[in-house]
Amino acid sequence: MKIFFVTGNKEKYREVKEILEGFEVEQIEVDLPELQGEPDDIVKEKAKLAADKTGKTVFVEDTCLCFNALKGLPGPYIKAFVEKIGIPGLYELANKYEDRGAVAVASIGFCEAGKKPMVFQGKVKGLIVPPKGSTRFQWDQIFMPEGYDKAFAEMRIEEKNKISHRRLAFEEFRKWLETQ
Amino acid sequence: MKIFFVTGNKEKYREVKEILEGFEVEQIEVDLPELQGEPDDIVKEKAKLAADKTGKTVFVEDTCLCFNALKGLPGPYIKAFVEKIGIPGLYELANKYEDRGAVAVASIGFCEAGKKPMVFQGKVKGLIVPPKGSTRFQWDQIFMPEGYDKAFAEMRIEEKNKISHRRLAFEEFRKWLETQ
Repeated sequence: MKIFFVTGNKEKYREVKEILEGFEVEQIEVDLPELQGEPDDIVKEKAKLAADKTGKTVFVEDTCLCFNALKGLPGPYIKAFVEKIGIPGLYELANKYEDRGAVAVASIGFCEAGKKPMVFQGKVKGLIVPPKGSTRFQWDQIFMPEGYDKAFAEMRIEEKNKISHRRLAFEEFRKWLETQ
Repeated sequence: MKIFFVTGNKEKYREVKEILEGFEVEQIEVDLPELQGEPDDIVKEKAKLAADKTGKTVFVEDTCLCFNALKGLPGPYIKAFVEKIGIPGLYELANKYEDRGAVAVASIGFCEAGKKPMVFQGKVKGLIVPPKGSTRFQWDQIFMPEGYDKAFAEMRIEEKNKISHRRLAFEEFRKWLETQ
């Protein structure tokens, strides 16, 4: 079975291709709307739209940063928050609450054309910390995973990719693919 | 020209029908996705989708609450914030910043099937205040418009409807319709 990863991001594609080694994965770009809703519903809907549009078996991946103090928000709207108030602004927001706990969530929506979409998720608990480290990826600078003493952005990329929410989500996905 | 207001909300429909008196307005329900993005882009996209889906001339309306301290957020995501942290939580959030200024924005997307969508907006500046008054509508309890000493929720509905962001947006829309 050939499956298509809907993404415009070549870096992400390379990382995912490596995690899904042994499966036939190709990159495809599909123009999809950015949707509101719960993280799992968003990826299900996007995978369904992409499968219907292309007639192929596809998956999409979306990432959220959920503040405990805000009951899971900004969540799927984290990109808008990064754009509007920036990484320092996000830290400032979290720091105004006693509970600076957060969860990084990766959600994969998988869909075969004409079938119901499925979801696989990976979650990493952590803390919002003052910005530090490389600025390579959005909010990596302010998220310190539980059990570590540095932010994602202070880790080597290989180190982060071994423990990330995305890694966990794709491992769930891989396990399921292996049973097919 | 008959135009269709895409909404499931009969109350809103009645209010809008009154503002647009003299024009042939009908209510229509269309299943549309909740989109992310800038308020004007969201209603343009939704109006386009609804026009393409129904083949009719349609308009949609969306409302945002934009905090100055958060550079316009929660904005279009205000519904998710109300659901997750509630009205008291939203007040608490605003109150953590020195600037409790906010803008209530109503955006109307209008589209004739096959044509480009248009946008009309109404904005009311105000302050986020401790919750008070009727709980009839979402965040009316915490928004006090500039020049008034009470929250939207403390006004009689006719009083609010005379000065609201929605009224301003629909008056813009009406003015444009009159030139057609």
